[in-house]
Amino acid sequence: MHQLKDIIENKIISNLTKSFPRSPLKLNELHETDAEIIQLENSPYDLAITIDTISEEIKTGLYSDPYEIGWMSVMVNMSDLAAVGASPIGIVISQILPQNISDEFIEKLQQGINDSCKKCGTFVLGGDTNLGDELIISGCAIGTIEKGKYLKRVGCKTGDKIYTSGNIGTGNAYAFQKLFSKNDSQFVYHPTAKLEWRNILKKYSSSCIDTSDGIISSLDQLMRLNNVGFKFRNDWDKAMDCSSEQLFGNNNLPIWLLLAGEHGEFELLFTIPAEKKLDFLKEASHLYLKPIYLGETTEDPKISLNLYNKEQSLDTEKIRNLTFEKDFSPSKYLKKLLEIDTSFKNA
Amino acid sequence: MHQLKDIIENKIISNLTKSFPRSPLKLNELHETDAEIIQLENSPYDLAITIDTISEEIKTGLYSDPYEIGWMSVMVNMSDLAAVGASPIGIVISQILPQNISDEFIEKLQQGINDSCKKCGTFVLGGDTNLGDELIISGCAIGTIEKGKYLKRVGCKTGDKIYTSGNIGTGNAYAFQKLFSKNDSQFVYHPTAKLEWRNILKKYSSSCIDTSDGIISSLDQLMRLNNVGFKFRNDWDKAMDCSSEQLFGNNNLPIWLLLAGEHGEFELLFTIPAEKKLDFLKEASHLYLKPIYLGETTEDPKISLNLYNKEQSLDTEKIRNLTFEKDFSPSKYLKKLLEIDTSFKNA
Repeated sequence: MHQLKDIIENKIISNLTKSFPRSPLKLNELHETDAEIIQLENSPYDLAITIDTISEEIKTGLYSDPYEIGWMSVMVNMSDLAAVGASPIGIVISQILPQNISDEFIEKLQQGINDSCKKCGTFVLGGDTNLGDELIISGCAIGTIEKGKYLKRVGCKTGDKIYTSGNIGTGNAYAFQKLFSKNDSQFVYHPTAKLEWRNILKKYSSSCIDTSDGIISSLDQLMRLNNVGFKFRNDWDKAMDCSSEQLFGNNNLPIWLLLAGEHGEFELLFTIPAEKKLDFLKEASHLYLKPIYLGETTEDPKISLNLYNKEQSLDTEKIRNLTFEKDFSPSKYLKKLLEIDTSFKNA
Repeated sequence: MHQLKDIIENKIISNLTKSFPRSPLKLNELHETDAEIIQLENSPYDLAITIDTISEEIKTGLYSDPYEIGWMSVMVNMSDLAAVGASPIGIVISQILPQNISDEFIEKLQQGINDSCKKCGTFVLGGDTNLGDELIISGCAIGTIEKGKYLKRVGCKTGDKIYTSGNIGTGNAYAFQKLFSKNDSQFVYHPTAKLEWRNILKKYSSSCIDTSDGIISSLDQLMRLNNVGFKFRNDWDKAMDCSSEQLFGNNNLPIWLLLAGEHGEFELLFTIPAEKKLDFLKEASHLYLKPIYLGETTEDPKISLNLYNKEQSLDTEKIRNLTFEKDFSPSKYLKKLLEIDTSFKNA
């Protein structure tokens, strides 16, 4: 059985939190939800709260445009709220600004924050500012959920259908373009939290997670939490975002790495019990939502994908732990992923 | 009239937030409260939320002990909740940890976080971890307040009595000891959020702020918000913390600088209308709370203190803006404060 603690990130989180007693008001278990769910007494709803910091992405150069940094600092948090089915109340933001930052940079940063909030129908409620060496933005978002109706990562069963809320691969396509490509034509990456899926997912889904760490990480986490496996549809490339596929194609990169990289597309990934599939698709269509079919939940706890005309089982533990290697750099990371691809070609 | 915007910190906050539309659920105005107050619909209470980051204090060496850093990262946020009269629900914490940090350091850091939560009767609800160059901790605390009953910085009137929730000066005494003194004997600085004052302050106080930025900053902010002045009691040294006074005395530093420095003691500073004073003191005594009398609110909007046998008016704008000078360093800061003291001696 695959264990949560085999993934370094899970182990770090468990280690940091092991000494903390559990709040009697906290409804979710550790790792079980994308945001924390807190019981509000004498209230028709519960509270969702999440905190997320943008720092590594700025440091590696993945995010450099101030507007984009502002946009993402809100969106990553709103995506967590979307993944638990919450309606956002707002966000508080702590900004560490370098001394030498320009007024223009700050203005664009705030514009990105503002537009991101607008897109989610929410508000900056307050914040905190410090001076520092590097630009670092932490956002903490809160939202409400009808009592007991939050979405969880746990609950999927063998035979459930797996969907995403949109075509996938954009996060890793963007990361490649930004960090490796000399081509000036900017790949468009402008994720939005999928808050509008809230009600339909509460009605039909058996588990839900956002793809902030990419598709394979999300599936791997669901596998470990639910002790099930996932088999991608044979024509899984149909689920991919077209321009992402083109970008990777033009650069002779294997398309499946768009699923494997850790920079996600911030879609929702969810499972629907087979018997609810038709009703779900019908209602989604009425709501102008377009779920993308990705595959099926299997009994055997592994993640498998048709690659080079062969059903191949992915070593998702190895893939997920690559970013925690001591000498991590984007180019070493890509090299290791390509080595894994070579092993599939030769399999 | 002294304006909020004459203080660089206020100006930065106003500039950062000017483009953000106001949430219809937000009850407080900008600068008006220590935490944001958010209306919860269909609920007997409102929500308080605050975010605060410990970074500059680590960078300058003011906080270096991991336990203390953990303790303070919770306490600064709980103090904001105390200053609005909220009952904490919990805190989420984003930690940026340097790559080379030791397991022992991390353990003590978490222990500090844990003990600080315990002291406040609250819990870590969740968090986020990143790797980075420097240790940076952001906490975001939430709490509840009986509907419409939150404490504000605005509301005090001429003649109101000023109190603090405890003896003052410890924050700046600690900062001096830590940054300037070669003496090994550690000055004890272990602030606790004054959450237990909640009910009595809701009943009697006309304004409240925490002293996270020191006494003079807090009074100056109240002055600007309420267009009143403050006159310290003639024997204001009686309000000081004994060991802080001793430390400054032993180092030939003017005692009043314990009020002026920007590293606060995290007490609550509040005003009580004169006619309520006796009832307030009686009830405080029953609750084993010991308010420290500091002075009186005056019509003339200035802050005055008996110094060198003369009533002196403090240039609080100058004092507060010292930390924002371009070439700021703790030693330059102390030097400038001592220059101001010299001008009083010669006045």
